[in-house]
Amino acid sequence: MADPHHFAKIPEPALRRLPWYLSYVKLLRSQGETIVSSTRIAKKIDVSASQIAKDLSYVDIHGKTRVGYDIDELIHVLETFLGFTQTHRAVVFGVGSLGAALLSDSGLEQFGLKIIAGFDVKESLVNKKIHSIPVFHSGEFIERNREMAAKIGILTVPPGSAQEVSEYMIRGGIKGIWNFTPFRIRVPEGVVLQNTSLYAHLAVMFNRLLS
Amino acid sequence: MADPHHFAKIPEPALRRLPWYLSYVKLLRSQGETIVSSTRIAKKIDVSASQIAKDLSYVDIHGKTRVGYDIDELIHVLETFLGFTQTHRAVVFGVGSLGAALLSDSGLEQFGLKIIAGFDVKESLVNKKIHSIPVFHSGEFIERNREMAAKIGILTVPPGSAQEVSEYMIRGGIKGIWNFTPFRIRVPEGVVLQNTSLYAHLAVMFNRLLS
Repeated sequence: MADPHHFAKIPEPALRRLPWYLSYVKLLRSQGETIVSSTRIAKKIDVSASQIAKDLSYVDIHGKTRVGYDIDELIHVLETFLGFTQTHRAVVFGVGSLGAALLSDSGLEQFGLKIIAGFDVKESLVNKKIHSIPVFHSGEFIERNREMAAKIGILTVPPGSAQEVSEYMIRGGIKGIWNFTPFRIRVPEGVVLQNTSLYAHLAVMFNRLLS
Repeated sequence: MADPHHFAKIPEPALRRLPWYLSYVKLLRSQGETIVSSTRIAKKIDVSASQIAKDLSYVDIHGKTRVGYDIDELIHVLETFLGFTQTHRAVVFGVGSLGAALLSDSGLEQFGLKIIAGFDVKESLVNKKIHSIPVFHSGEFIERNREMAAKIGILTVPPGSAQEVSEYMIRGGIKGIWNFTPFRIRVPEGVVLQNTSLYAHLAVMFNRLLS
């Protein structure tokens, strides 16, 4: 089945493209379609059909020659492979504007990310709830995470604290950091790091709009 | 001065790195530092000193040999070049969970993005306010944007509507689309597109945590 352990390690660019295919074939299913070819996916998405076939070779699905992929099966296999059908427990460090916004975004849960707590040093935020999610003092994280056992830490602290807080999260058992700060943190080997720099996207947009 | 028009067009990867440098030198300034070399930036950030010097050659700043860059000047030039000191008017299409969260994220305004309205088709959301930002019916956009004159559209609609809504936004005068949906939209030449796929980042994180 679609257990990543049974396959060659999928390269990150391929992994990043899989959600595009998933999104498109879910749209096709909602329109009543049952079969899709990589050529058809390629027409809608800016990726060649051979690249799509190659990307899909990392997951356990086989298209039929001259027919294509069964859409239900493709969706099931992709969602499982991508981890969207499992529940991954996460905490948010830094309940400022963006952190609080992420606590409020229940949409992430549909993709398997369950935010179970926020942490902050600001007394006015601590021991309150945001959208039913409790916020604790950052100093309590290591103790609390023994029970909570969150493996993913979402980093939305001020950039000046980003490195220090990420090291603290790792001491508390965090194995994957989703960094939303514009600061380029470093993590030890074995810890997964994903950077989502909203500011970098803004910078590109602003610059290109001027040109 | 740091007007992008006076310089060779900066490549996107370089542009994306500039906010990292900015973030780091702002941290240095807050610690009382006044001068920084590209070697020193390189030590903190996973980019070579020569790459940093090259990236900075696209903006109007000149380091002094064996001394480095004046931090105040570097911050000023980078913030101006990146467009963070100007106000760019934006609208959000799709005031669901993520869209509403972005309306609540006042932090974006510090980087020059001012969200002035939300648009949705859901009657229960229309003609309400979220964090003082009005939400209108999507059908009113073209009419309303004659006055609002927003150039940036943030796309947080369901994936199945992403392409159609982006075309509609463009008809209403949008020149840059910030796509948060997992759908791979296509835009005509001259329209700037930035994709922030939170789901792709989740997919990479989940997959790598398993490995």
